[in-house]
Amino acid sequence: MTEAAENFRQCRVDRVSMAHPGDVTAIARLFDEENLDPASVAAVLGKTEGNGCVNDFSRPYAVTALQTMFAERLGCPPAEVGKRIAFIMSGGTEGGISPHFIVFSVSKSAKPADGSPSLAIGTAFTADFVPEEIGGLAQAEATAVAVKVAMKSASIARPEDVHLVQIKCPLLTSARIADAKARGHRVATEDTYASMGLSRGASALGVALALDEIGAKSLSDSAICQNFSLWSGRASTSAGIELMRNEVVVMGNSSAWTGGALIAHAVMQDGIDFGAVQNALRSAGVHTEGQLSADEAKRIRAVFAKAEPPRNGAIRGNRHIMWDDSDINATRHARALVGGVIAAAIGRTDLFISGGAEHQGPDGGGPIAIIATKKSTKTGGPELPRGTIAVVNGIQP
Amino acid sequence: MTEAAENFRQCRVDRVSMAHPGDVTAIARLFDEENLDPASVAAVLGKTEGNGCVNDFSRPYAVTALQTMFAERLGCPPAEVGKRIAFIMSGGTEGGISPHFIVFSVSKSAKPADGSPSLAIGTAFTADFVPEEIGGLAQAEATAVAVKVAMKSASIARPEDVHLVQIKCPLLTSARIADAKARGHRVATEDTYASMGLSRGASALGVALALDEIGAKSLSDSAICQNFSLWSGRASTSAGIELMRNEVVVMGNSSAWTGGALIAHAVMQDGIDFGAVQNALRSAGVHTEGQLSADEAKRIRAVFAKAEPPRNGAIRGNRHIMWDDSDINATRHARALVGGVIAAAIGRTDLFISGGAEHQGPDGGGPIAIIATKKSTKTGGPELPRGTIAVVNGIQP
Amino acid sequence: MTEAAENFRQCRVDRVSMAHPGDVTAIARLFDEENLDPASVAAVLGKTEGNGCVNDFSRPYAVTALQTMFAERLGCPPAEVGKRIAFIMSGGTEGGISPHFIVFSVSKSAKPADGSPSLAIGTAFTADFVPEEIGGLAQAEATAVAVKVAMKSASIARPEDVHLVQIKCPLLTSARIADAKARGHRVATEDTYASMGLSRGASALGVALALDEIGAKSLSDSAICQNFSLWSGRASTSAGIELMRNEVVVMGNSSAWTGGALIAHAVMQDGIDFGAVQNALRSAGVHTEGQLSADEAKRIRAVFAKAEPPRNGAIRGNRHIMWDDSDINATRHARALVGGVIAAAIGRTDLFISGGAEHQGPDGGGPIAIIATKKSTKTGGPELPRGTIAVVNGIQP
Amino acid sequence: MTEAAENFRQCRVDRVSMAHPGDVTAIARLFDEENLDPASVAAVLGKTEGNGCVNDFSRPYAVTALQTMFAERLGCPPAEVGKRIAFIMSGGTEGGISPHFIVFSVSKSAKPADGSPSLAIGTAFTADFVPEEIGGLAQAEATAVAVKVAMKSASIARPEDVHLVQIKCPLLTSARIADAKARGHRVATEDTYASMGLSRGASALGVALALDEIGAKSLSDSAICQNFSLWSGRASTSAGIELMRNEVVVMGNSSAWTGGALIAHAVMQDGIDFGAVQNALRSAGVHTEGQLSADEAKRIRAVFAKAEPPRNGAIRGNRHIMWDDSDINATRHARALVGGVIAAAIGRTDLFISGGAEHQGPDGGGPIAIIATKKSTKTGGPELPRGTIAVVNGIQP
Repeated sequence: MTEAAENFRQCRVDRVSMAHPGDVTAIARLFDEENLDPASVAAVLGKTEGNGCVNDFSRPYAVTALQTMFAERLGCPPAEVGKRIAFIMSGGTEGGISPHFIVFSVSKSAKPADGSPSLAIGTAFTADFVPEEIGGLAQAEATAVAVKVAMKSASIARPEDVHLVQIKCPLLTSARIADAKARGHRVATEDTYASMGLSRGASALGVALALDEIGAKSLSDSAICQNFSLWSGRASTSAGIELMRNEVVVMGNSSAWTGGALIAHAVMQDGIDFGAVQNALRSAGVHTEGQLSADEAKRIRAVFAKAEPPRNGAIRGNRHIMWDDSDINATRHARALVGGVIAAAIGRTDLFISGGAEHQGPDGGGPIAIIATKKSTKTGGPELPRGTIAVVNGIQP
Repeated sequence: MTEAAENFRQCRVDRVSMAHPGDVTAIARLFDEENLDPASVAAVLGKTEGNGCVNDFSRPYAVTALQTMFAERLGCPPAEVGKRIAFIMSGGTEGGISPHFIVFSVSKSAKPADGSPSLAIGTAFTADFVPEEIGGLAQAEATAVAVKVAMKSASIARPEDVHLVQIKCPLLTSARIADAKARGHRVATEDTYASMGLSRGASALGVALALDEIGAKSLSDSAICQNFSLWSGRASTSAGIELMRNEVVVMGNSSAWTGGALIAHAVMQDGIDFGAVQNALRSAGVHTEGQLSADEAKRIRAVFAKAEPPRNGAIRGNRHIMWDDSDINATRHARALVGGVIAAAIGRTDLFISGGAEHQGPDGGGPIAIIATKKSTKTGGPELPRGTIAVVNGIQP
Repeated sequence: MTEAAENFRQCRVDRVSMAHPGDVTAIARLFDEENLDPASVAAVLGKTEGNGCVNDFSRPYAVTALQTMFAERLGCPPAEVGKRIAFIMSGGTEGGISPHFIVFSVSKSAKPADGSPSLAIGTAFTADFVPEEIGGLAQAEATAVAVKVAMKSASIARPEDVHLVQIKCPLLTSARIADAKARGHRVATEDTYASMGLSRGASALGVALALDEIGAKSLSDSAICQNFSLWSGRASTSAGIELMRNEVVVMGNSSAWTGGALIAHAVMQDGIDFGAVQNALRSAGVHTEGQLSADEAKRIRAVFAKAEPPRNGAIRGNRHIMWDDSDINATRHARALVGGVIAAAIGRTDLFISGGAEHQGPDGGGPIAIIATKKSTKTGGPELPRGTIAVVNGIQP
Repeated sequence: MTEAAENFRQCRVDRVSMAHPGDVTAIARLFDEENLDPASVAAVLGKTEGNGCVNDFSRPYAVTALQTMFAERLGCPPAEVGKRIAFIMSGGTEGGISPHFIVFSVSKSAKPADGSPSLAIGTAFTADFVPEEIGGLAQAEATAVAVKVAMKSASIARPEDVHLVQIKCPLLTSARIADAKARGHRVATEDTYASMGLSRGASALGVALALDEIGAKSLSDSAICQNFSLWSGRASTSAGIELMRNEVVVMGNSSAWTGGALIAHAVMQDGIDFGAVQNALRSAGVHTEGQLSADEAKRIRAVFAKAEPPRNGAIRGNRHIMWDDSDINATRHARALVGGVIAAAIGRTDLFISGGAEHQGPDGGGPIAIIATKKSTKTGGPELPRGTIAVVNGIQP
């Protein structure tokens, strides 16, 4: 292997709280007190306390606050920040879920790896889509290419070493639909809310394709949000109005990375699949019987899961009311439930649980991915190794 | 002991689903197909799908449907039914909680007990309160007496053999407040919503008093909903507008009862106290590591828990948003969370989780009680022994 | 004209409040204190305080309470009551709308009419539909026939004398869809929520057909909920799970009826069309400039209106947020708005405003119908003439 | 009078829409296309589409977007903007209310006034309060002083020429309460939510004091939010977490101002007081019978009103459900209702209706203030005179 020592990288993961969606003071403290270099930040994920639905302004409010703060720190205009750092906000902290940010930063490492693979992260963006591509095969295929690029950028060679692909994808608006029509094209749906599901679904199937979870032949326009037997156990996708491309963050383990953390995943078969949560923990090297002890819980650096109401209206044969509740959106119920189930296992509530799980795990279930510090490593955040910076960007060679 | 064989009793527990709050067809099927005698029914608890708050009409709708059905079956006027059967409805099936009824029926048993204590149930009612007593010491003390009467009626001698005291208690309305004032008395609060919490709290402290969880000296008007270091680990109380007395259902284990079920409890220290759920299961004789297997889950006949948002705004140091959410009531978040945590342990979602846990367990936590069939007994409902009927009523000697 | 004196009828309208959806005591008081004969009641409309959406249990709760009360009064089983009296409940009292019942009762009148037409009411039911007919042309056409039958029963010869057709119509459930499919038929939609809109829309178009508002040629399966240029200015339809037929209540004015009230209508072009409300008042013989005086307001016996969010997201060019609000259903916003606009004109809040206005008036608008006592008549309820009873049922000859 | 020609001022009022709370593009267009000078802006009021309650992030999101935009335009840091321009956001656009910004800008005018008084605006700030002052007499008295200063700054000599006093006031947080206690002081309430009402109420009573609506003797700590017979018919106050002082914007008419607009007000006695809306219109010189014509509606430049559920649970004797609805906050119902009533009169939905009307008008009612262009002036926005700038700040001499 010709990889030189200076090519080793390490990924630091900081999880911090927020007092409200515009509160980025805990991230600022990382810079001021915890030795984090703002320029090393590759991605910020945020679990914000809106409704996670159409009028959830907690997401753009958080992004605005992040842009303002990073613009100051990086000395660039706010509009530039988004080109350097991927901001992925997910609304909805129902039940006991605690609002929080997860900050991923990447730096070069002179230390050779200890041999065991470590958490690796890579990002890639597709080109902007035209409206008629959103929610269709073209979006899925472009996503698959971006996943491959991000894997390469993260020095992850094998699909099985990828454990989470977090994607932010576009949606259709009335104006975008009109634009496609004016050019003589059909769109996947004229229902703008439905376009969110189709975009998430197409993106998830792109991940499944890239990770060999499904074959290319099974994929077609008509399969998207129709044939739910096709799914990825590692995709987590969310749609937003503010972009026209897919932004892809791949997380996995790689020997080209050092650092004290690794990532693992499992697939919850339904919303109360506690066994899957335990399996993910075990795969991440965390011993579990019952709930983690407070010490073990500290080793858990981040938890990602998708939540979704089962379509048949029941969980293991018992009726749920998520679809029938006109006061609380079904996805809000689902997040609350899955938040409780995962908190039961982990003993923490700062969990990144998001809704809208089309083609992301089986009906009513979804992927769960866990980043944990390795056992030999001391627990806690600041102990993760740090160094000089090499921002990951999958598009550049 | 002079207790004759015919004095042995057995308590049957049936848990059935409902398609909507007015759907009592599954109970009717118990009568028609499962050999249950309507006259043996002592209590029906219902977890209905309303918001569990002020305008939750799923509760009275269910009661109306139950009254109509039982009136037909028992050949008495609907208004008479409530004197024979305790109906306790709890609204709120957030997250994955499944709406269901739990039917308790009691019959004489000729078989001697096998020696091991079995599930025992007793009911008692206080006299009607005057408005000025609600939420105060008088209500607590009368409740304590009623608990003692219900224990005696259930042949449970020792407080430690009581594992759940379910209480329905009154609240203040504008008219009731005016009535008290007209007679020159002060009420505990002039805020009708607040009166629900005071009534629940006074009732819970009455249970604590009866079960020796607190001393009589610590109890005063001013302690109610103020000194939250006082609490019962076995009380579950809910307030309703339709009554002026406390209706008390005591559940425990007694050697005077036969039958295949027993009850156990534990106290959750916070909403994600998975260990407490496992402790309650173990106390009920159910082996648990991780989630119960499907077979073991069938042994669980009913689960009761209280849910409450922690007052300090955090769960183990991480902020929750329950108190700040003006779209979804805090108790709704709390039920969803605790429902997820218990479902993680049990593998079922038909859980009787209710909110409003004043003086019922520590701040942010609450009691959890589990009724399980004994290990030697075959699993499932119909196998529970049945026989002729002796309705329990603690007030009559 | 050969109509004999004893064939004259009169319709009494009582509007009473409810303290909650199960509170029918004010209707009982009409029987006990206001000389109303329970057997004369032809229809009860109720505006109940649920969310008016899927999980609105205030509607069936009210119906259950009405059935129980009328069964006692009429000496028949509760299940029989629905065959004699049409119960039409509409959920949703947003903004300032006041929950209330409107009781229509009909009696024979020996007095000859004073020549001026009076409020007339007729009911008719279609045969039960098979699931594949719901939401389609068959439902519309059968509804048109039923409207004609109800008109005849009400002795209203001319379509222009009809001012309101209130219809309760069925919806599709999963079971009903499966049934149609098992018999080899297609249903209008497999989305049960969407089926409510299609059923309301087909029923409204049936009214439009019967009242010559549209031509038979313009009507087809594909027009329903697609071609919104077709609509009735007098239809008000709502879907319920509890029936498989359309229940039609026609209200108009007829010289065959006596009594002190008449009905008029207008069509609101949008949700703030105050002028239309004033036009309806003027047509009903009520003088209006600004808000009615308290005395004039007493002459208003009932107000019916449909509310609907404009599809284009704006009211007279200004953006509304009804469609974007994931916390409050769009129809709830619409009812609140229209309730305010009509209360501005009438000076009362006990208004029967219902949502779901497919093909009932133009996009964003809807019919408004007003029943008022005639000017020469003294104001108030009890003054309306009463007599012996002849329940209207359009199906019987 | 010694006032020199160059001391004449004019107030321009622009009302613009927003696509979402962070959308300030319509204000930017005023600068780029409508000849508005950013430096002339004295205040921006925003009606944003959040829930208007605790977790309404649409308000700070809008403020953040405004700060960023104005910082660029004014060439100052975002944090400085708030010292130059008063931003007052009010959440809640229930029913048909349209989200919008109202931009007040002030410039010098060389033209002598035509003699008739014109719209005048003045701002003033109190000093920061200590927590123990919030919600008490001290806050009320300081507010009264600030109102007087703002009147002077606006050259409004007589209280009767003031028609609206818009105030942003602070609230108590847990930290602020702890601070007061640590210094040995008591706070008005330890319930942070209740502190919002007390602060609004104290501020409103300060206005009432300044405008001679109440006497100083009637005011005491204990009157605040207790003696609701005391109120101002011209105060509109809202509480926010982001400040510790009261920010006061006074609007009235003054001969020292030129320009084509004037302001008038009336007091709605309840939520459906259509007559009061018409009275305010007439006072503003707008002819009204029924709804304004489209042309007349264009003369209405801004409408301000407070909405509040009547405490007794009824509107003119008919029950409302605002207090009993645990799904939708009472203030949201109230805004929706009042929005409908005012839209009925005006024919527009871009109305600044805010909740929380303690001591602002009688129980269940509230002030309504209307800014209209004078009749002789051509309708529409850009026609208002513009010129060089003199930002109003009442604190500086």
